[in-house]
Amino acid sequence: MSAEVVFIGLGNMGLPMATNLVRGGLTVMGFDLVAENVSKLVAEGGVQGASLADAVRQAKVVCTMLPASQHVQGVYLGEDGVFAHARPGTLLIDSSTIAPDVARQLGQLAAERGLEMIDAPVSGGPVGAKAGTLTFMVGGTAKGFDLAQPYLQKMGKALYHAGEHGSGQTVKVCNNMLLGIIMIGTAEALQLGMANGLDPKVLTEIISKSSGSNWVLNNCNPCPGVMPAAPASNGYAGGFGVDLMLKDLGLAVENALSTRCSVPLGALARNVYDLHSKAGNGKLDYGSVFEMLSKQ
Amino acid sequence: MSAEVVFIGLGNMGLPMATNLVRGGLTVMGFDLVAENVSKLVAEGGVQGASLADAVRQAKVVCTMLPASQHVQGVYLGEDGVFAHARPGTLLIDSSTIAPDVARQLGQLAAERGLEMIDAPVSGGPVGAKAGTLTFMVGGTAKGFDLAQPYLQKMGKALYHAGEHGSGQTVKVCNNMLLGIIMIGTAEALQLGMANGLDPKVLTEIISKSSGSNWVLNNCNPCPGVMPAAPASNGYAGGFGVDLMLKDLGLAVENALSTRCSVPLGALARNVYDLHSKAGNGKLDYGSVFEMLSKQ
Amino acid sequence: MSAEVVFIGLGNMGLPMATNLVRGGLTVMGFDLVAENVSKLVAEGGVQGASLADAVRQAKVVCTMLPASQHVQGVYLGEDGVFAHARPGTLLIDSSTIAPDVARQLGQLAAERGLEMIDAPVSGGPVGAKAGTLTFMVGGTAKGFDLAQPYLQKMGKALYHAGEHGSGQTVKVCNNMLLGIIMIGTAEALQLGMANGLDPKVLTEIISKSSGSNWVLNNCNPCPGVMPAAPASNGYAGGFGVDLMLKDLGLAVENALSTRCSVPLGALARNVYDLHSKAGNGKLDYGSVFEMLSKQ
Amino acid sequence: MSAEVVFIGLGNMGLPMATNLVRGGLTVMGFDLVAENVSKLVAEGGVQGASLADAVRQAKVVCTMLPASQHVQGVYLGEDGVFAHARPGTLLIDSSTIAPDVARQLGQLAAERGLEMIDAPVSGGPVGAKAGTLTFMVGGTAKGFDLAQPYLQKMGKALYHAGEHGSGQTVKVCNNMLLGIIMIGTAEALQLGMANGLDPKVLTEIISKSSGSNWVLNNCNPCPGVMPAAPASNGYAGGFGVDLMLKDLGLAVENALSTRCSVPLGALARNVYDLHSKAGNGKLDYGSVFEMLSKQ
Repeated sequence: MSAEVVFIGLGNMGLPMATNLVRGGLTVMGFDLVAENVSKLVAEGGVQGASLADAVRQAKVVCTMLPASQHVQGVYLGEDGVFAHARPGTLLIDSSTIAPDVARQLGQLAAERGLEMIDAPVSGGPVGAKAGTLTFMVGGTAKGFDLAQPYLQKMGKALYHAGEHGSGQTVKVCNNMLLGIIMIGTAEALQLGMANGLDPKVLTEIISKSSGSNWVLNNCNPCPGVMPAAPASNGYAGGFGVDLMLKDLGLAVENALSTRCSVPLGALARNVYDLHSKAGNGKLDYGSVFEMLSKQ
Repeated sequence: MSAEVVFIGLGNMGLPMATNLVRGGLTVMGFDLVAENVSKLVAEGGVQGASLADAVRQAKVVCTMLPASQHVQGVYLGEDGVFAHARPGTLLIDSSTIAPDVARQLGQLAAERGLEMIDAPVSGGPVGAKAGTLTFMVGGTAKGFDLAQPYLQKMGKALYHAGEHGSGQTVKVCNNMLLGIIMIGTAEALQLGMANGLDPKVLTEIISKSSGSNWVLNNCNPCPGVMPAAPASNGYAGGFGVDLMLKDLGLAVENALSTRCSVPLGALARNVYDLHSKAGNGKLDYGSVFEMLSKQ
Repeated sequence: MSAEVVFIGLGNMGLPMATNLVRGGLTVMGFDLVAENVSKLVAEGGVQGASLADAVRQAKVVCTMLPASQHVQGVYLGEDGVFAHARPGTLLIDSSTIAPDVARQLGQLAAERGLEMIDAPVSGGPVGAKAGTLTFMVGGTAKGFDLAQPYLQKMGKALYHAGEHGSGQTVKVCNNMLLGIIMIGTAEALQLGMANGLDPKVLTEIISKSSGSNWVLNNCNPCPGVMPAAPASNGYAGGFGVDLMLKDLGLAVENALSTRCSVPLGALARNVYDLHSKAGNGKLDYGSVFEMLSKQ
Repeated sequence: MSAEVVFIGLGNMGLPMATNLVRGGLTVMGFDLVAENVSKLVAEGGVQGASLADAVRQAKVVCTMLPASQHVQGVYLGEDGVFAHARPGTLLIDSSTIAPDVARQLGQLAAERGLEMIDAPVSGGPVGAKAGTLTFMVGGTAKGFDLAQPYLQKMGKALYHAGEHGSGQTVKVCNNMLLGIIMIGTAEALQLGMANGLDPKVLTEIISKSSGSNWVLNNCNPCPGVMPAAPASNGYAGGFGVDLMLKDLGLAVENALSTRCSVPLGALARNVYDLHSKAGNGKLDYGSVFEMLSKQ
């Protein structure tokens, strides 16, 4: 049994992504440490496989969607890793969010073996993964980006080629560090206005037309009641979790250490989310820092 | 000699604002500690006055554009202040950027005397003042806002009624604190990307379509070369000076102390601009913090 | 009825201080908004008074121990204030913790009226006030400091003359800002060590003999169990409350704004204690930030 | 040719340390990438060696003093590393300052090979290394600590056993993070006092007897003129360099990321020193942050 695409990591992101590849007409063989996740993909039309090594040897494309750098290194490297079994020319797409350094290193090792690897982290979360509307930020060669497009288009709607190996991860780290900073800054501004008697809706409307305007304020306002559909108006359920933001800010600070960058606000933002998570809010939407600034 | 409008404070903001009132067909009598500034307004068609007290007694509208809270208190309060001489019903428009507390107090004192006062700080800078395209953020009664509109429209193009007395100042303080935070955050993100080999134009383009998108990134990008017309591409000349941002962040932190708000990022941002100013960069555009993060 | 000393403000600091003056053989007439507090002083041998104005007119020394700047201004200034009634030559001792600017201004106004005023804030807390072991940090003239010594010695054991009017407050603000920073820093260092498996007692012992040594680590270690007598080992009860530290850090940041100082760590420390207080810990000892860094 | 002690890394710390072992009566064979450094040790009585592998095979003790984690890993691991050649029972002393994680890992690998390794980073700098007055913070078994004492005592005067493998590094990281925080806090407090007219010597004296007292204030005061022998009074020459402090704070933040600790002040301190270094002050004593807060 073989398949055009092998998809490794069928969690709450990987499963809907792989499912969209199946719906796009491709044969997809899925692998996951949890057997039940594989069964779910088979129920959607995926192919059941026995040996990952065999599957990789016969695949045209290998996709991975894993929790962190060490898992990605574990799957690609080593005697039984993807690199050891993939035929030259195989396209490797890693959509995990990992350290840019690791993505760079893997991309180079792949190239040395004649494999075409891209780092292609996403934004859009489980909702975007299901809807097939993810944004992909891609690092790798122009050829790798071109080869990947037909596959990525079945899972997302916006594809950006950021630069060489690791560049997709770098863009994601930079964007999310800025996002994490802006969320706290927006929460501070709204709290300060309210403490002076302003209506947060009026304040939001005026800032949205002024120099403080930003995506967070306009799309996932952290003040309950300002936007009925935002996580803030639904008990900070759904959305982008504090612990996920914390992971991304950790990657940013780690990268800043190795590249000798100054990130005073980024580093403080990480610590603010960390304190918020330690107080028991790790699973809430990251906009819940608004509550941290106002408790009692 | 009398005039419909008395305008106090003819600096690099007040003079072009008063001039636009003149061009709008109004008689405007100007006052300033620097006689030359008054002459400039007269040269534009303004009316020369002798006594401020007399002028205020006969005016329909008094506008002020002064450096800081203490100057505004000095002009309005005391035996020889505007409050002492203005006839009931006079409209008072203060466009200075001052502490919300002070604006609130002045507005209440004015109301007790039968005067209609609004706080109406602006954004847009000297360029917007000359072009008559300022944004006004207004605090005061609905009646005060309505009465002021014909005058404000001759000086600006966007008018927002934020709420009661002091609300205009509060909106400005909130917006500019957020702006100051976002500028540093954006500079950090761009530096981090470049340290990883990314092209800042590509990074800017991708983030501008992602969740980190914000007005600073899209309109006055702090990385030299990304936007040819931005201060960053012109040696950080023009634009919004570090020392002006520092003043506004000082108002924000001061207000946070009196309202017991937490503003961890706002407070850190103030200190970052303060260190940058102490290193001799107070007159440069605030986007020059980008250079602070990359020197050597 | 008259008394050598008039003592205004008989709270949990003022009452034991006034009591120690009584025990030192002085006649002390006390005033407080809470009648019960006055009765407590009378029970200790204090003199009951009727009119504050009369009392001040007949006193040799007036002491004040009040919550904040506005209360001190209220008691000394105005038509019915201490300045209006005190005879030339009266010694005025304000032991409240207030803004250096306000202390400076009051000291100058007193001098203009021929009164000898000192600002003499204390450290040592209610325990030191009862034991008569307070530390006094004094601002004012050398003559004022000399005149005050016999009185201060009955309430404390260490007296420092810091400089001109306001200098006592400045020293207290500087010391407590540094204290607030060091407490958080010490908590961070202990947590980091423990997360790496170190015994906090061993870590404390080694750092106490190294360059990180400081008063907090050696005298009120924030890690429960390291020092049996410290608040940390008693549920963070007693000690120096988070909200009091927050007040002092507020004075520091306010002063930094008016003197254009950079206090990046001081400003962040204020926000950390503010977040900790907002989470419901305002009454605990300030060492409880240790728990904030480790919750869950 | 053989020697009891092999010493690898003869820089401005390693050379005087190895020299003190020679003076203590031991035969010491030195190795360094710079041949001249080896010659210097030979001139002091050290033994010239040819093969590092041979030397290690015959040694009783191997000491290393290297710049960073990767150098230490390079020397101990790999086919030609110390672990590959040392006889069972050899004592390995690494005095480099490296990541606790790496020290832990090396200690465990050594134990698996029957080698007795300790991590023994030092404080005291080149001055202490020459004088033989270094402080050693040791991680490893009690047996390892005992075996090492006779050697460490020839190079230092204070020896602390902090705990298991890696604990010496952890103590150093914790102490130096706290030190870095306290230096900035002390500089902020002194600047704030001076901006209010206080004499920094008087302020130092009072705080040194109060709750803000700490080693930095009392031993290497950052305000020029307060202590004639301190680096601050000598153009911030000598002392502990900004870039070395930056390296240690980098290790602290990196460790905080991997152990999920919150270090808001430690992370901000790192960024403050980083900005200071980027402005061209990396080689000055770390107390020069005092100047950063006061420039102009």
